Amino acid sequence: MDLHEYFPIWNQLSRDIQSSLLSNAVLRKIKKGTVIHSADSDCTGLLLVKSGQLRAYIANENGKEITVYRLAERDICLFTASCIMRSIQFDITVSAEKDSEVWVIPASIYQSLMEKSVAIANYTNEIMGMRFTEVIWLIEQIIWKSFDKRLAGFLLEESNFEESERLNITHEQIAAHLGTAREVVTRMLKYFSEEGLVHLARGTIEITNSSRLCELAK
Amino acid sequence: MDLHEYFPIWNQLSRDIQSSLLSNAVLRKIKKGTVIHSADSDCTGLLLVKSGQLRAYIANENGKEITVYRLAERDICLFTASCIMRSIQFDITVSAEKDSEVWVIPASIYQSLMEKSVAIANYTNEIMGMRFTEVIWLIEQIIWKSFDKRLAGFLLEESNFEESERLNITHEQIAAHLGTAREVVTRMLKYFSEEGLVHLARGTIEITNSSRLCELAK
Repeated sequence: MDLHEYFPIWNQLSRDIQSSLLSNAVLRKIKKGTVIHSADSDCTGLLLVKSGQLRAYIANENGKEITVYRLAERDICLFTASCIMRSIQFDITVSAEKDSEVWVIPASIYQSLMEKSVAIANYTNEIMGMRFTEVIWLIEQIIWKSFDKRLAGFLLEESNFEESERLNITHEQIAAHLGTAREVVTRMLKYFSEEGLVHLARGTIEITNSSRLCELAK
Repeated sequence: MDLHEYFPIWNQLSRDIQSSLLSNAVLRKIKKGTVIHSADSDCTGLLLVKSGQLRAYIANENGKEITVYRLAERDICLFTASCIMRSIQFDITVSAEKDSEVWVIPASIYQSLMEKSVAIANYTNEIMGMRFTEVIWLIEQIIWKSFDKRLAGFLLEESNFEESERLNITHEQIAAHLGTAREVVTRMLKYFSEEGLVHLARGTIEITNSSRLCELAK
């Protein structure tokens, strides 16, 4: 992934802007499990995922979490540069779910490019619109979808991400993704297992009937 | 409210852009209860609230609703012009909660201004950031706050909006704001009433102990 591949508007940018992006982007390798950005961080900057997988989530004072969105290769994380916009008044935490490589564009650089280039400013609007769409989807899920459907959907999504029917994930981790308690996850997984949808073993969940799981998730 | 008061960046705009905004904005009077924008609408345009109150909400196929945010005088609604951005893939409905006056800037006009003016493009980012902040707050409320706290907070907010302790609102309407069922609202209000926090009468809810209600909402 070269830098210009993240910006469909690359050809609309002046040489100056292009070279400012190219010369200021720093490639960082991030180990699985590392928190790249949190409420306590300074403004990390724009993150462009070159490889691996990131998770963006909100957490409350009791350590409860919910995943807001996940980022894979080609995705851009804007909220790690949220200091650019005065109106963004919430804290998002971003951590690596796999060993990852990300391009970091420092917030101050990106801000000055947004102020110079109408194409960059409007592209930023598009990125934010994309995240907004995901967040509205999340609200719809939480309010209108029962937990069995959400869990079924999550297991299928995870299997898709990992390209495997065998998921190495704990009940605790699933609870943090879905914003619920571990007990709730354990209870529902036990039910799924009794129904023959999954097979549970220590530290793994194996999907044994993905079509019925898919039917349930609808 | 003159048009320039909605745009803190007004002085950064060229005469051309300013006069395009001024000449294309249309003042519309909207009766309480009118749906101004819905999934079926064409792209309505940017709405600037001059007076009154609007409610933006999402609804599912069964007619269930949840309020995403509310707009009062001085507020701008961007998502009624969401056709401007390809990445916005959700439908929001906007209706008038009071008789209102709004300036409408047609989507096509606003889009062309965003493409010409970096100040307009970045200001649009700020508006979206503001709504994003409200939506993240909403998710936190739904996941981490119990329903008694949410209802207490809603009644206080409503009382603040209406500048009255006497609220003319049905249980059904509260349920639609908070994304729950009417029965749940009725049950909790009965509890509040037994605790002396509110007095219930036909079609009205009177707050009788706002300090305890406030304590509960925290």
